[in-house]
Amino acid sequence: MFEKNALTQTPITDNLARRWSGRAYDPDRPVANVQLLALLEAARWAPSCFGYQPWRFLIWDRHADAATWQRAFDCLVEGNRAWAAQAPLLLLATADSQFADGRANRWSQYDTGAAAMSLAVQATALGLMVHQMGGFDAGRIRTEFAIPESFDCLAMITVGYQLPIDRIPEELKERELAPRSRRELGETFFAGAWGRPFG
Amino acid sequence: MFEKNALTQTPITDNLARRWSGRAYDPDRPVANVQLLALLEAARWAPSCFGYQPWRFLIWDRHADAATWQRAFDCLVEGNRAWAAQAPLLLLATADSQFADGRANRWSQYDTGAAAMSLAVQATALGLMVHQMGGFDAGRIRTEFAIPESFDCLAMITVGYQLPIDRIPEELKERELAPRSRRELGETFFAGAWGRPFG
Repeated sequence: MFEKNALTQTPITDNLARRWSGRAYDPDRPVANVQLLALLEAARWAPSCFGYQPWRFLIWDRHADAATWQRAFDCLVEGNRAWAAQAPLLLLATADSQFADGRANRWSQYDTGAAAMSLAVQATALGLMVHQMGGFDAGRIRTEFAIPESFDCLAMITVGYQLPIDRIPEELKERELAPRSRRELGETFFAGAWGRPFG
Repeated sequence: MFEKNALTQTPITDNLARRWSGRAYDPDRPVANVQLLALLEAARWAPSCFGYQPWRFLIWDRHADAATWQRAFDCLVEGNRAWAAQAPLLLLATADSQFADGRANRWSQYDTGAAAMSLAVQATALGLMVHQMGGFDAGRIRTEFAIPESFDCLAMITVGYQLPIDRIPEELKERELAPRSRRELGETFFAGAWGRPFG
């Protein structure tokens, strides 16, 4: 396993610094059930508006049920199918767009993103790699798995072990080894007034 | 500092297990700049669709600029003003609803929730407590701080140190000490088919 740590002006905790959305998964290393359980517990305990927990996750395990996994996998766009096939687990994050009384929950997607992030942090702690994808056919997966209309299908998520660097396929190598980048801190964080750079 | 760890069937990493949205802040302990920097770096390196980083955060420091902090604080609903006044830092998480070409970014809130969760995880690592709130006047804060229409104002966030248990005010005690809870795992995570409980 190789690392592409976040480049920060001050250290951040290891499971955030090391988290990284790679594409080169080891197809031969399944994720143990107890590890998957830890990922789900991490997501389960994320914070949410009114404690409503708007998220629901669907989970497909390639080793446990290849046929059902395939139906989910086939909903990915071609560019993602090219690499996501190697990951042993595929998940879908959905967000309940309504509160129990039918009113719109304007925090449902925000809260669901937090739950998925928790899952990714826990995965990093266990030496696993998570990659979230917006590139999938949301209408098709809704039909395929009878997902209620009130739930938004937000991200497909691969989980598995990273391939050792010497086994990364040629066509993935450049992307896998490219440095990570983010906007400058002052373009994202504003001190007291909109647009006034922090720091 | 007292702990209200997540109740999980298998251990999860400390900074997720210990994270908890309390209300009893120590008014006398400011957050050092290097700690705030670490929180922002954590949020900065969150994942996002196409690496677009739709989030922008506004930051108000009660110790550094009390008047401006007050303008932000006054946008909170009364129930939150009752306790949030003690926290030294107040932030606003906003999400850019559009990509650079003007098309809607349907992951902007989801991604912004992930960035805020990263911030909360880093805060926990530093012994700080984060509480996110949906209860604020989004229209008022937009006007007050000239936030562009294309950005959604999603959550106000307090950051500070927790009060020691023997200093928690009587009116907060019951809520602060109440046990935490979540839906059963099988109601949130589905194995292969919608509604089929995991585990």
